[in-house]
Amino acid sequence: MVDSRLIPETYDRGFQQPAPRSLEEFNDLPSHVWPKNARREDDGSVSIAGVGLPDLAREYGTPLFVVDEDDFRSRCQAMAAAFGAENVHYAAKAFLTKAIARWVNDEGLHLDVASLGELQVALATGFPAERITAHGNNKTVAYMDKIVSSGVGTVVLDAPGEIGLLNDRAALAGVTQNVMVRVKPGIEAHTHEMIATAHEDQKFGFSLASGSAYVACEKALDAVHLDLVGLHCHVGSQVFDAEGFSQAAERVLTLFVKLHDERRVTLTTLDLGGGFGIAYTAHSRPLCVEDVAEDLIARVQRRCEKLNLDVPRIMVEPGRSIAGPTTVTVYEVGQVKDVHVTDTQTRRYVAVDGGMSDNLRPALYQAEYDLRLVNRSASGAPIPTRVVGSHCESGDILITNEAYPDDVATGDLVATAATGAYCYAMSSRYNMMLRPAVVSVKDGKARLMVKRETIEDVLENQL
Amino acid sequence: MVDSRLIPETYDRGFQQPAPRSLEEFNDLPSHVWPKNARREDDGSVSIAGVGLPDLAREYGTPLFVVDEDDFRSRCQAMAAAFGAENVHYAAKAFLTKAIARWVNDEGLHLDVASLGELQVALATGFPAERITAHGNNKTVAYMDKIVSSGVGTVVLDAPGEIGLLNDRAALAGVTQNVMVRVKPGIEAHTHEMIATAHEDQKFGFSLASGSAYVACEKALDAVHLDLVGLHCHVGSQVFDAEGFSQAAERVLTLFVKLHDERRVTLTTLDLGGGFGIAYTAHSRPLCVEDVAEDLIARVQRRCEKLNLDVPRIMVEPGRSIAGPTTVTVYEVGQVKDVHVTDTQTRRYVAVDGGMSDNLRPALYQAEYDLRLVNRSASGAPIPTRVVGSHCESGDILITNEAYPDDVATGDLVATAATGAYCYAMSSRYNMMLRPAVVSVKDGKARLMVKRETIEDVLENQL
Repeated sequence: MVDSRLIPETYDRGFQQPAPRSLEEFNDLPSHVWPKNARREDDGSVSIAGVGLPDLAREYGTPLFVVDEDDFRSRCQAMAAAFGAENVHYAAKAFLTKAIARWVNDEGLHLDVASLGELQVALATGFPAERITAHGNNKTVAYMDKIVSSGVGTVVLDAPGEIGLLNDRAALAGVTQNVMVRVKPGIEAHTHEMIATAHEDQKFGFSLASGSAYVACEKALDAVHLDLVGLHCHVGSQVFDAEGFSQAAERVLTLFVKLHDERRVTLTTLDLGGGFGIAYTAHSRPLCVEDVAEDLIARVQRRCEKLNLDVPRIMVEPGRSIAGPTTVTVYEVGQVKDVHVTDTQTRRYVAVDGGMSDNLRPALYQAEYDLRLVNRSASGAPIPTRVVGSHCESGDILITNEAYPDDVATGDLVATAATGAYCYAMSSRYNMMLRPAVVSVKDGKARLMVKRETIEDVLENQL
Repeated sequence: MVDSRLIPETYDRGFQQPAPRSLEEFNDLPSHVWPKNARREDDGSVSIAGVGLPDLAREYGTPLFVVDEDDFRSRCQAMAAAFGAENVHYAAKAFLTKAIARWVNDEGLHLDVASLGELQVALATGFPAERITAHGNNKTVAYMDKIVSSGVGTVVLDAPGEIGLLNDRAALAGVTQNVMVRVKPGIEAHTHEMIATAHEDQKFGFSLASGSAYVACEKALDAVHLDLVGLHCHVGSQVFDAEGFSQAAERVLTLFVKLHDERRVTLTTLDLGGGFGIAYTAHSRPLCVEDVAEDLIARVQRRCEKLNLDVPRIMVEPGRSIAGPTTVTVYEVGQVKDVHVTDTQTRRYVAVDGGMSDNLRPALYQAEYDLRLVNRSASGAPIPTRVVGSHCESGDILITNEAYPDDVATGDLVATAATGAYCYAMSSRYNMMLRPAVVSVKDGKARLMVKRETIEDVLENQL
């Protein structure tokens, strides 16, 4: 059937058999990847917290983000149990809506924001400003003014120029602003290049090795309207190795000692940032937060004893590890086609009604996701399958190469798990595909968190 | 100064001296990269079409997209001169606003849309539906219904399942719909992997080599409410080599012959898609569209003579090559800091008030951009510089490594050129950084095309 004169050099490039997977495995919902309250029901459909995903798709349309509220709150509680609620700052950048800010507030956690916009959303829900920490490598004057005028708890200083500027804005507002200095400890946890943030050649923070972190602390101490309360560092994202956090902590503690010895200052807070990895696919194993916390706290205590230092509060900034696993994205399957990849090998292309506009991570980070049929159980034989989006771009691929049952068909509903972090947050209107709705589910009930965008939303802003 | 005990292994990784660049070169605006009407004025600031970028920044804020309307229209005219206006379909996915749809209409070009949303924006401006071609690898029923009910000129069929479905929707609407079949000719033009679209293992179109393209044509011919008028192919994006277009055309013509011989059908249209490359940086040289057109048309004519075939209309779908070079993004410089990269080497980090939310292409495709100071001429000595955005992500880099003058400072305005295509179109609200305004400039006057998003736009849709 294949005309060999027309076969380009690329015709048989890169085809690999996907890992084998039984029908039973495909119909399973791995509990370390899927939301806590996700179940496959007797009729084969998937529900979360007692609400059927097919019902939600019917009511709210697809693509649709569905958040397991109880899972979200449970993850807040687990973090609070491990580190103390006052030491856990939910990183809003992962996923922030008004409802999420309220949940974080209810659970007694603190909140990290990274921009004026994130701060405004939090404040719009009545989130107590004193429990907010403000980040950003390039804080604008408007952002700083909102910070000092609304009484934001702590600001993380990220550049030499920020110190004098924030001092001036605090002076103008007549306040003293608590600050931390972000330190580059020179630890790079094992993770994807794009999201590794503790090596030296990067935009965030002040280098410990070069001495610029110490200089920044001195400047902050000398600034009349700033009160230096601690040091901050961040070793990376999707970290599966507690060692990185510990090593970073030990390095940053050398600066606690130096400030104590040379400036007679005792800092109270050691903020170790975020980065706790989650499982996106069945074969990866997330860190146990409780174990990491226990180990980390013990190591810092031992180190402080050795250094003859008061033990500081240890703060963490989980975003992905709270929001990520709580959410799934439901899509409707559209066109299904078989593509000859080699003379003997066919790949099935399954297109869904979303794509890189609602989940950029596969295109941006080659991220992998766990996808399942959610309107029924599958019954077909596994075949090599690629799941693609509806965008006019060949890189718009959600699942690159998996063995899926061959009965996945037009009109079926599928869902990708662990889409709570950095999916809605990074969503776009590429190809004028409007942003999906977000609903939460709890105790058998659904609640709209974010409305689906309409074409009127687009046209309204245009002239 | 650097404490070697604290230097991680990654400390001196990857530092390369940027290519040297004189001050004169930096203050220049390369005319093949910058908009047609961009000038550096006597006071050192940059204007476009007589409107100063500093004035625009003051009036509309930053980041700001500024579109040279005359350049956009001139590029439409050049394409029309090369291929005939009725054969040029502006690819809306690159950059679509109501104003742009109006310009394209004024210039007599046709319009390609890739989704229901793009179609709705076009129709909202009164763009004549008969001059619209509808693309998409996964057209929804709602999209198809809008297509057939509004009288869209042509639909490009992309999957076997679409043929019967579109026939049904056309039947329901009581119309006969002109269609083309998208063919994978098996040509891959030299371009970035992610945006290459003519090899076999991809989601778009029907394979010529496997025979599925012929089968699709047969099905379309047999569908009572469809009228097959031509074949479509697309060899890739950012193509700098006319050879790819010609080879693709020759291959697709074999299907014209087969349909003529076996089905007694003479197709009238050969749509060669888009992909004309543009210059993002001074050292790249774009294709001359007139030359490509002349060469391509001559080759197709010769081929048709040889094949004893009526010469079809040759249509093209430029998006980037029309919109890309017409637009710049203006940013304000915020924090500037020097980072020790090795013991002897420092890199300057210049942060601007935008980033991957308004230009995803550097992070997504490792795309390079040409950045210049636009509020004044530079006067400093060149030093290794990285320009980063304000997002809470270390991969948020606009310019990776260039030699820029060392007097670029906080409060300066800089602009990246050639941001007309796939920048605003792919923009997000990551970190709640709201989407910039877009203004057009012409004959000394500015006009708002898209309003800057406000925090109210965000909060309005949330519950």
